Amino acid sequence: MTFKAIVLGTGSAKPTLYRHHAAHVLNVHEQFYLVDCGEGTQLRLLECGINPLRLNGAFISHLHGDHVYGLFPLLSTMGLMGRKTPFAVYAPAPFGEVIGWHYRYFDTNLPFEVVYHEVDTRKHALLYENSVLEVWSLPLRHRMPAAGYLFREKVPPLNVRKEAIDRYRLGIAQITAAKRGEDVVLEEGTVVPNGELTYRPYEPRAYAYCSDTLYSAKVARLVQGVDLLYHEATFATAEKAMARETGHSTAAQAAKCAAQAGAGRLLIGHFSSRYKEMDVLLEEARAVFPATEIAQELAVYDIPVKRTEP
Amino acid sequence: MTFKAIVLGTGSAKPTLYRHHAAHVLNVHEQFYLVDCGEGTQLRLLECGINPLRLNGAFISHLHGDHVYGLFPLLSTMGLMGRKTPFAVYAPAPFGEVIGWHYRYFDTNLPFEVVYHEVDTRKHALLYENSVLEVWSLPLRHRMPAAGYLFREKVPPLNVRKEAIDRYRLGIAQITAAKRGEDVVLEEGTVVPNGELTYRPYEPRAYAYCSDTLYSAKVARLVQGVDLLYHEATFATAEKAMARETGHSTAAQAAKCAAQAGAGRLLIGHFSSRYKEMDVLLEEARAVFPATEIAQELAVYDIPVKRTEP
Repeated sequence: MTFKAIVLGTGSAKPTLYRHHAAHVLNVHEQFYLVDCGEGTQLRLLECGINPLRLNGAFISHLHGDHVYGLFPLLSTMGLMGRKTPFAVYAPAPFGEVIGWHYRYFDTNLPFEVVYHEVDTRKHALLYENSVLEVWSLPLRHRMPAAGYLFREKVPPLNVRKEAIDRYRLGIAQITAAKRGEDVVLEEGTVVPNGELTYRPYEPRAYAYCSDTLYSAKVARLVQGVDLLYHEATFATAEKAMARETGHSTAAQAAKCAAQAGAGRLLIGHFSSRYKEMDVLLEEARAVFPATEIAQELAVYDIPVKRTEP
Repeated sequence: MTFKAIVLGTGSAKPTLYRHHAAHVLNVHEQFYLVDCGEGTQLRLLECGINPLRLNGAFISHLHGDHVYGLFPLLSTMGLMGRKTPFAVYAPAPFGEVIGWHYRYFDTNLPFEVVYHEVDTRKHALLYENSVLEVWSLPLRHRMPAAGYLFREKVPPLNVRKEAIDRYRLGIAQITAAKRGEDVVLEEGTVVPNGELTYRPYEPRAYAYCSDTLYSAKVARLVQGVDLLYHEATFATAEKAMARETGHSTAAQAAKCAAQAGAGRLLIGHFSSRYKEMDVLLEEARAVFPATEIAQELAVYDIPVKRTEP
């Protein structure tokens, strides 16, 4: 029951040798999702051993090149690899047009379908779900329409306690009813409350990706209780005015969001190329939210399963 | 009087961790020209310490993504760096349209002009010249219109021999006449033939880039005497049929081109990702043209100045 984020790039618009353009991979129960896709993403995938054919799709935050230029070469490579499975792309408008333009000149014979889903950047909407996961959009505040993404594990189905089955000699029909959340009536007429029979095997986990954005109190509310918050921290507090002007956050503002959200951990990234050492950014963030880490490229951030009982 | 090629990528369509997408930089008398621009080119430039603002422009061979996807992020980064100098792009049609589409969605405020020059891939035409260099197109044979590029140093101006100036006590007017290639009449009426007074300081050098292409006898003629020939060698002879089908060359065919052209040295590249070791390709090429080398990424291939005299 994997739930982990792999950081592929931590740089901002101007890449450096040590900080590549934005891209994360989410692995949720061994299903893989790409979040943003800056130039060189396919090479970062190679470096961390993730076969692009395993990706279900990509969630693109906004249409600045450093978040999306890597998608076209990735599509081409998946074509060469013979991908047949459709690839979903969630992105703000007018990315559907951009894909159409791309097909006009490149990848004219792509052997798989790219299924575009337009993301309304003003809404907190459910974009995707499967049996274990929901992905929600987060309205960000950037200088162009931008969305963050919240990956939230669904509440898992009830498990029936082994000892309850034994004690009450439950039959198949009774076990099924208990799994549905119902109380169970025993043969002699006693009603056993569902709470005594069942438990949730684990607490749902959540990860949020918030880049590029100014600090947003609304986002902090929407990601309440998130286990791992990735929040951009392009600048230090000394460059606060520039952060505001360019639609970015300082490390302290990222930390403020994490603190208000009651996040488990905060990862900061999307650093301006002006910072060679990350100490100032880390210190400024930790002063507000101690559980902050500098996002490291190719590092895996695991959110361990939180088993409740038994 | 630098004349050197820096190889940024030696892979073909599917990149590997060790072979990036196509891109070369030509440094001719400290003027820099990009040839092809696959994904990640801006990072390779960083790695070899070439400031993108020094690039005069790019010569794009054809519109397959592995030769051009890196151009858009490079334009964006040069914009962020505050480039003001126009950037020339030579590429086959319809690349002008592609640039137009790019502006529609990205780089809407680029602070410099991208000057597009359409390359007719059927012609061997002079595309660009300055005081020391000419760049010519080479008609390639690929499965879409494709051009190679021949960088040829101009014949340098005549130098006047120091000892001739002393011996004949030449004045400024006589020296200038000699530099123009004229014979000189001395005061007493003697005519000194120009050949006795002057010499060419060096032999013009040339580099050709031929990728992607089938073997072409015409190209071999057009690059006659080239000092350094870069020729694609996507496949080994065992995959000759596949080479033909996909519009590519084998290493032996690249070598045949070099031999027929009387090239000084042959660099082979654009290798299929199927080859982990290059021994077979190198052996097959050297059997036909011994002065063959495997192009190495980030290596600098210098063509030393060929001084004639004195």
